[in-house]
Parts: sequence; structure tokens; C-alpha cells
Amino acid sequence: MNQNLISCKIIAENSLIGSMSNRTYAILGTGALGGFYGARLQKAGLNVHFLLRSDYEHVSQHGLIIESVDGDFSLPEVNAYYDVEKMPQCDVVVIALKTTQNHLLPKMLPPVVKDDGVVLVLQNGLGVEEEVAQIVGSDKVIGGLCFLCSNKVEPGHICHLDYGQITLGEYAANYYPAGITQRMRQIGEDFESAGILIELTEDLLLGRWKKLVWNIPYNGLSVILNATTNELMANVHTRKLVEQLMYEVVAGAKGWDRIIPDSFIQTMLDYTVKMKPYRTSMKIDYDECRPLEVEAIFGNPLRMAQAAGVNLPQISCLYRQLKFLDAKRRGG
Amino acid sequence: MNQNLISCKIIAENSLIGSMSNRTYAILGTGALGGFYGARLQKAGLNVHFLLRSDYEHVSQHGLIIESVDGDFSLPEVNAYYDVEKMPQCDVVVIALKTTQNHLLPKMLPPVVKDDGVVLVLQNGLGVEEEVAQIVGSDKVIGGLCFLCSNKVEPGHICHLDYGQITLGEYAANYYPAGITQRMRQIGEDFESAGILIELTEDLLLGRWKKLVWNIPYNGLSVILNATTNELMANVHTRKLVEQLMYEVVAGAKGWDRIIPDSFIQTMLDYTVKMKPYRTSMKIDYDECRPLEVEAIFGNPLRMAQAAGVNLPQISCLYRQLKFLDAKRRGG
Repeated sequence: MNQNLISCKIIAENSLIGSMSNRTYAILGTGALGGFYGARLQKAGLNVHFLLRSDYEHVSQHGLIIESVDGDFSLPEVNAYYDVEKMPQCDVVVIALKTTQNHLLPKMLPPVVKDDGVVLVLQNGLGVEEEVAQIVGSDKVIGGLCFLCSNKVEPGHICHLDYGQITLGEYAANYYPAGITQRMRQIGEDFESAGILIELTEDLLLGRWKKLVWNIPYNGLSVILNATTNELMANVHTRKLVEQLMYEVVAGAKGWDRIIPDSFIQTMLDYTVKMKPYRTSMKIDYDECRPLEVEAIFGNPLRMAQAAGVNLPQISCLYRQLKFLDAKRRGG
Repeated sequence: MNQNLISCKIIAENSLIGSMSNRTYAILGTGALGGFYGARLQKAGLNVHFLLRSDYEHVSQHGLIIESVDGDFSLPEVNAYYDVEKMPQCDVVVIALKTTQNHLLPKMLPPVVKDDGVVLVLQNGLGVEEEVAQIVGSDKVIGGLCFLCSNKVEPGHICHLDYGQITLGEYAANYYPAGITQRMRQIGEDFESAGILIELTEDLLLGRWKKLVWNIPYNGLSVILNATTNELMANVHTRKLVEQLMYEVVAGAKGWDRIIPDSFIQTMLDYTVKMKPYRTSMKIDYDECRPLEVEAIFGNPLRMAQAAGVNLPQISCLYRQLKFLDAKRRGG
């Protein structure tokens, strides 16, 4: 009886996003991240549909080329779309845009998400799942934290330099910890079949705050000080500032009852010292005059901490500096 | 009897630094600031001796040229010295070096200060009087806060663009408020005879903290964000950050029982909005690859606040950013 119930539950959850063999994926944003993961899924045999803007003509004619530390490959034919209205409704809709494009989501998402589909948010920062939940419902959102080092070198041509793992976490209203669900496992299996390392987390918000422990100091300071990670770690003053910023992130997480141990900070510092010199994603955006993801990575965490009565003065300082640099760089 | 006592006191204090007609001045550092004030004093008839390093040959042969909003003039002959040991002992020894040169003071000051002379510290930041007091004694130090906009455009050629007033304050051990003394008045009169506006303050430390209300946000952010004062004020985020930094300076002052009213912050903000676009002194130093006065303007105030149990996190953030930029710019 009990066994039956569990089986029923699995079948019901399976039915939410279809069975493994025919699960369809929409990739919204076919850049360094969306292009890489989408191509790997298609190569693994999944049915993938790519939304593009500037590269649409090129990719619809020539497909995608992936140069990768895991092995190069090309997909001469892909399902490319310029208009979301022309896309089929999909089981899994992957948001792989920069968060600076998220004002487009209210129009973009509804046409492409199946009634029993799910939206997978593969974006930086905090609070995006909540925005997406307001569009598609809070039962339809999964967050994914990507640890990926890749660049788009030209239209349809992506260079995957390092890493690639994704941590998946179910979203529930107000970021209540949602545990491990069957559909997380299934999506995880699809990615694993494509050679992507997957970790599942029971608490998406904890995962997001933990990622910010690295992202806030290094993304912020790399732009403000025009520096690589190794330069920041080699100077005693910026190394100390990095550490203090990490402690502020931990304090912000604590305001939401998410406990990140001090040892995690030490691990991140040690890990960064050992990394090869790294230009952060925000620094790359800045160097290429693209809008910076300041609100997702700094503004939302600050506001969430504030809502919990926690003040993060040094992160606030970086936030305001970045808002200035972002506006100035783009002539604002 | 009482009257007699007062007269005696004045005579005694006068004797400390000689009578007005023959008061001698040593200018240590004949740059944009020392060259300007020293030249004005000499033009007013005072006996002035200039210490130079890189410009010594030029100035000893050609004197000084002052281009000034108050009227141009030149001094074809000045008393120029390369070696402090060759200088006469003077009544008033003006420290007009950048604070980044202050490691030279223990050797530089003793030979040039008369036994009954006084050292006038015309430098930025906080804590320098205390350092000087350790060399010459705490009864021999006066601080001066300069509001001066001038540049050295070539050896011996100084361009005075705006302002020029000095606030004088007696130093006493541990920055105890020392009131208005007769020798402050006399030095003030010498400068006033040279056309320099003088204000006397009873509390040097309060004056220094008040000056930091402007200097900390604008000097720091102008370097870190490569910005002029008007750019910082035109952006809503940096304007807010400037204000928050000013409140931190006020908190630091309060730790030493110096009360700066909120209205002073509003006055500084309004004043800066109305100013013409201004490149701060630290920004000029940075652009010209000179060492930055980070310790005097940021490090010492932070340490003083810390000693009073006051934490200034956003100023600390700027301090560490500036230490990084200063080291990087100079190849450190």
C-alpha cells in the first residue's frame, strides 16, 4: 500500500514533465551558458529548442560549434527561433539570459512553458526565482547554480574553458526549503546524460547565498579595481576586504536562517588562491560594455538582508560603486 | 596687576617665536602648497627659506613664479636649500610636504626648528601633529587646515586656481582642545599680511575631522571610480554613498567627543553640487603616479575611530581599495 503510494507519486511527478525519452527543452538565451548546456543536451539526444536574437540568422544556417575542455563538437542543425511565439511549448524552459534582460520574461515565458512544464533558472544572483514564480506560478520553478567558465567567441561559437557543474534546487514560495523532488532528479539525469555534473540541494536559498560568498567580492572588486582574482588575493588589503565581504554575505544568509560556516569562507579563499588568474563574469561584461548584473548579485541580496533587518555596509558600498560604473560605462 | 600678568604672558609668548618684524619661516616642501604660501609670505616682506629637492637647481637660479587668481607675481630671488642642515633655524617651520614623505621628518625637523620655534603642519588628514610632536615636543606644534586649489605646472612655477584660506589650531597632547593662543594669532597675522584668509579654531581635532567630512568621500571615490566631484553628485547612488561616508566620518569624530552637526553634512553636499567640476588632490596624485596620502586621510582616522571603539566599515572599504590601487599603480 505504502509502496503503491510512492509509485503513484513518482508517476504523477513524471507526468508533470513527461517521460525521459521525449522531454523537450527550450533554451532562452543561446550565449556562452545557454548555448553550451543546450548543445550538450541536444548532443545527448534530447529535443532542444534555442531562442536567439543577434545570432539567429547565423545559428539557424550553421548551427552551433562547441570548443570544450571536455572535447569539441559541432551541431550543424539546431532548432533556432527568433520569436518565442514560434517555439513549441516545452517541458523544461531554461532561462539562460543575463538577469539584465529579465524585464523580458513576463512576455517571454508564458507562450513556451507547457501546462505541466517547469522553468529552470540558470542565472546569477538572488531573487530571480521569485520573479519567475510571479509569472508562471511558484510550483513551476527550479533554480540552478552554474559553475561554468565559458565564452561566446563569435556567433554560434562557444568556448568552454572549465567547470560546468550545476546545483539544482526546487523553488517554493518565500524560498521555503523544498527538499529533493522527483522532477529535480529527472532534469538532473538529463543533464548527467549530457556529461554535466549535477548536485541536488534541498535548500535553494542556502545554495544561492553560498554562491554569493564568492560572487560578491570577486565580481564586485574585479570591476571596481580592474583586477583579476589573483591580484586581489596577492594584496594584503584586498584579501582582507574580500574576507570581510564574505562575512557580510554570511550575515545576510543568517538573516534568513541560512547558516554558512566560517570554514566555508576559508575554503573559498584557499580555492581562489589556487585557481589560475580568473577574469570574473562581471568583469568580462564590463570590459565588453555589456550591462552589469548589479541588481541580481548585489541589489537583491542587500534588499533581502534589509528585509530581515540586516545591514551589509561594505556590500552596499560596492553596490553603489558598481551602479555608478555601470551607468558611466553605458553613457548614463 | 592682572593686566601686567597678561602683558607678561603676551611678551613671553611673543618671545617664543620672535617679534612680527623679523619672524623667520622655513618652508619644507616647495610644491603647489608650500611654494604658494611661502612666496606670498616673502612677497609680504617676511624672511622665508625654502627647502627643495627636484626643483632646487631651477629655483635657486630663477626663483618662483606664481600665477594666481589673486594676481600674478614672481620672486626672482629666493633663499633656496637642498640640504636642511644648511638652513638657518627658523621661528616657524612649515611642513608642506605630502604626508607620504613624513618618514623624512625625524631627520628633517630638528636642525631647522629654533629652540623657541614652532612647527606648522599644513598637511592633509589626521594624526600628523602627533607624529611631529614626538619629534619636537607637543608644545611646539600648530596644525593648519588649508583650503587651497593650486598646482605646480613646472619647476618653480605654481598656478593658484582658487581658495587659499587656512584654519589654524594649536596642538596639545592627545589632541586635547588647546584654545586660541597668542602665537597662533601672530602666525595668523603674518599670513593675513600676505593676503591669506585665516581662521583660528580652539579645537584642532574637531577642525581636522570636519575637513575629513569632505576629503574622505571625494578623494576616495574620485580615485576609485575615476570621477570628478560633479559626476559623483549627479549619480543617485554615489551621491548617497558620499552622504553615508560623511555620516561615518561624523561617527568617528563622535568617538572622540567631537560633535559635527548633520547640518554640516548637508552644507558640504550643497557646496559640492554648486562647485565647478573638481579633480581632488588625491585624484591628481593618482593621475600623476605619485603616492597617495591614504594613511593620513583614511588609515589614521580609521585607527583613531577604532581606538575609540567605533567601526567605520564603508571608509574601511575605501581604504583597502585605495591601498590596492596605490600599490598597483606604483608597481607594488
